[in-house]
Amino acid sequence: MEGFEEHSNNCSDSKLSAVAKVMLVTDKAVFGPGPVRLLHHINETGSVSEACAAMNLSYSKGWQLLNKMEEGLGFKVIKRFHGGAGGGKSELTANGKLLMEKYEELEKRTQNCLNDFFEEIFSDLEQWVDEEE
Amino acid sequence: MEGFEEHSNNCSDSKLSAVAKVMLVTDKAVFGPGPVRLLHHINETGSVSEACAAMNLSYSKGWQLLNKMEEGLGFKVIKRFHGGAGGGKSELTANGKLLMEKYEELEKRTQNCLNDFFEEIFSDLEQWVDEEE
Repeated sequence: MEGFEEHSNNCSDSKLSAVAKVMLVTDKAVFGPGPVRLLHHINETGSVSEACAAMNLSYSKGWQLLNKMEEGLGFKVIKRFHGGAGGGKSELTANGKLLMEKYEELEKRTQNCLNDFFEEIFSDLEQWVDEEE
Repeated sequence: MEGFEEHSNNCSDSKLSAVAKVMLVTDKAVFGPGPVRLLHHINETGSVSEACAAMNLSYSKGWQLLNKMEEGLGFKVIKRFHGGAGGGKSELTANGKLLMEKYEELEKRTQNCLNDFFEEIFSDLEQWVDEEE
């Protein structure tokens, strides 16, 4: 089974691994895994309300997230079109798309580091059995 | 102000930075920032109930966390002393202490990586102003 799976080990059904949740923060949380998913859905659907529905998020909670990130980041992530009453189309700004891409690069590279560190630091985890007391 | 602060930049009152929350997981979350704080408090106070109180956590919720981590990790993190009714002393096992130390090393090294990546990937963040539309 050589090379079968990069991070496989020899035993345990529910193998332990490490996951990094990356947050962008000022004095409060501004951006993270939830917000990036929201931007993805808006990018795909062209609609904040559809994006919120896809994430099981209320429309007002979705706009709260968007306003909070724009305030924290200091730039707009959503273009507002002057469409019909409350039903206008939405689209990410160039900065919004860049943020999405760069955040995902940040997340991916951090997770890769964490995977390496985890293997190194917890390499002997299988030998951590209960001592007799 | 050269060298004043390693990560300072030239402007913004509420500077953006990146924070890594490191979770140890199987098919569910096993360990993370909350649980490591709980172990620290138990280590300091010698008491699960005092540790829970210090974290504003109910005693039953504290034990839920401890049982979940022991189940996920496959070893005991707490020594149970056969003391008085419900009021026995608690102490971390050798593995519990090792877990605490190694998790913190993992967290620290991951955060250092993230800091470097953030500076690199978001180095031009100050120039992300709203475009005219």
